[in-house]
Amino acid sequence: MKAVAGSLADSALAAQPSTAAGAGLPTGVELLGRLEGITARRGLGALAARLGDLTDFVAGDLAELEARFLDVAQLDDRVGQATRHLLDLGGKRLRPLCVMLAARLGHDHTNAALDLGVAVELVHSATLLHDDVVDHGATRRGAPAARTVYGNAASIFAGDWLLIEALRRVERCRLPDLLPRLLDTIEAMIAAEAIQLENRGRLNTSMADYLRVAEGKTASVFRWAMQAGGRAGGLDAPVLETLDAYGLHLGVAFQAVDDLLDITGDSTQTGKRLFVDLREGKMTYPLILGLERDRALRPSVEEIVAMPPAAELAHELTDAVTRSLHRSHAARDGLRFARERSQRARAALVSLPAGRARRALETVAEAIVDRDL
Amino acid sequence: MKAVAGSLADSALAAQPSTAAGAGLPTGVELLGRLEGITARRGLGALAARLGDLTDFVAGDLAELEARFLDVAQLDDRVGQATRHLLDLGGKRLRPLCVMLAARLGHDHTNAALDLGVAVELVHSATLLHDDVVDHGATRRGAPAARTVYGNAASIFAGDWLLIEALRRVERCRLPDLLPRLLDTIEAMIAAEAIQLENRGRLNTSMADYLRVAEGKTASVFRWAMQAGGRAGGLDAPVLETLDAYGLHLGVAFQAVDDLLDITGDSTQTGKRLFVDLREGKMTYPLILGLERDRALRPSVEEIVAMPPAAELAHELTDAVTRSLHRSHAARDGLRFARERSQRARAALVSLPAGRARRALETVAEAIVDRDL
Repeated sequence: MKAVAGSLADSALAAQPSTAAGAGLPTGVELLGRLEGITARRGLGALAARLGDLTDFVAGDLAELEARFLDVAQLDDRVGQATRHLLDLGGKRLRPLCVMLAARLGHDHTNAALDLGVAVELVHSATLLHDDVVDHGATRRGAPAARTVYGNAASIFAGDWLLIEALRRVERCRLPDLLPRLLDTIEAMIAAEAIQLENRGRLNTSMADYLRVAEGKTASVFRWAMQAGGRAGGLDAPVLETLDAYGLHLGVAFQAVDDLLDITGDSTQTGKRLFVDLREGKMTYPLILGLERDRALRPSVEEIVAMPPAAELAHELTDAVTRSLHRSHAARDGLRFARERSQRARAALVSLPAGRARRALETVAEAIVDRDL
Repeated sequence: MKAVAGSLADSALAAQPSTAAGAGLPTGVELLGRLEGITARRGLGALAARLGDLTDFVAGDLAELEARFLDVAQLDDRVGQATRHLLDLGGKRLRPLCVMLAARLGHDHTNAALDLGVAVELVHSATLLHDDVVDHGATRRGAPAARTVYGNAASIFAGDWLLIEALRRVERCRLPDLLPRLLDTIEAMIAAEAIQLENRGRLNTSMADYLRVAEGKTASVFRWAMQAGGRAGGLDAPVLETLDAYGLHLGVAFQAVDDLLDITGDSTQTGKRLFVDLREGKMTYPLILGLERDRALRPSVEEIVAMPPAAELAHELTDAVTRSLHRSHAARDGLRFARERSQRARAALVSLPAGRARRALETVAEAIVDRDL
């Protein structure tokens, strides 16, 4: 648990979040700079240096991506405003970064890669807009969720709209296989949401179901991002398979860290309230482990799941959960699981020629475990 | 108003609704049989005979479409159930019928046409699932809306899922231009929903805005259906343009009749409660006309729009609206408008070679005005 929990202590030192819109989360290069700072302060000097190199490598691409995000959704009605509200709040832009790096492994068709990078972020944003309606989410990226400002209807239609905008961009690229794969990906995401909906509040959710959800909801998009970048870069089938494996493991690692941040994160950094997954009855990796290992955890979890969404969570209750997860080493093993998947993502790359792009992908997989947002 | 209002008297005579699922609305051939009965009883013998011919012509296609609808959504979770719930309730299948007839104008690639017919119905179904969440809709096709049975979350994800299933089918057909056009169509639908959302409860909605919504939300899908069938039938560009014009006018006529049915329909036939559009603050063709012509209508409309969704509508209030719309001839002119658009749809076909498929399309355009659901 050290790495993630450790980030709490760094929050005061971390650069102030700032985006083009002056609110929300650090974006792209700002994020990399912040990660660099965190890892340096944690004594991870080698990783910090690699993050610096990664930043130099992708700064231009990330800036160009932000410029293209600004061109999306110029409608001035509520649906357009809901769309811009979310896009302007920034975000990690990790999925587009995957597209750009995969493209740079190949011969770097920057224009197609940028379009595909925008597309994958739009798909991700579309799911956030729908998820916030489904989950009655109040905040997103440290700001009020679009649905609380512009209404559920605008948030649903904005999500629909972003999904179509993403598909248009992919269709226009005319690269083989990418559009049907994206449709498969979105369907996998919905199927995972369906499982999650079914298991909501079920404390006996199996690890198999957890993995199906993590792979369907999160990893599938990273896999597509790697595929899209690889296609834009003109890479051939064996390399694309390698990238697919990288995306899968990276995505699961990312989800496992998200799970930990829900319990041990710093909400001023993540822009997310704590215990949100748990309150929504979503069983995360550390919780499933913890419930298996500590029978005393069960009543606290049941109490939190049963609480009305607006009710204040008592500190004693959250402390009981956090203490149990540490005592049973569920939190530590959750981080271990994320590290292992990060390791497998990096291992998938061994067959690729060494170079700056491959190194950058390795750095991303490593840094993802140490992020604090 | 006669034709639509007249249908009320026929409801006792009309065939009992029945579908594969044993509930919901008459589907495909049943619907055509019912329309034939209605027109015969109204003394529209020639139209009834043409409807009989249309039924013979398309019965096989419609049966095959129903068989394919049964194959959609075999997931057994709540999202799958929400999807099946809606599909099993039947529906007019008018959009797939347009696809099949346009294909039969050409050399009738039945398999592609059937896939595209399924696709267009899935797009339509997806919008219904999202609309019911947005509008807090309680009933749909004479049964509880999917969201009231399986929840808003399942209804939102089911809509997302159907949209993707539709796009997959279109992508697999690999016919030129259809996929980008469908993406444009869905975006036009969302833009229209956005305008409607913006104008909700605004009694001074302009006729220009009304038309933008009707064209974007309703006609765009009919245009795509005609285009899709035409492509499946291998028709060339000038014919496709003709079909596009037909779809546009047919769609606007369809919407205008829907508007009338909201005020003068028979809810046991339409499966819709009356005054639903009005209660949701949606300004329809006859209402916009009526508000322009009769200042006394305004307070009643304001009162209905302001009512909470669950409140019972007093008969005096609905009678006042209906009486005003008849007195000012807004209802009559609404029907006139629908007839005029139906006429323009048929006129668009004059350049096409005479034959059974063209006659069938003319019959559809004519019958659409006389429907009671």
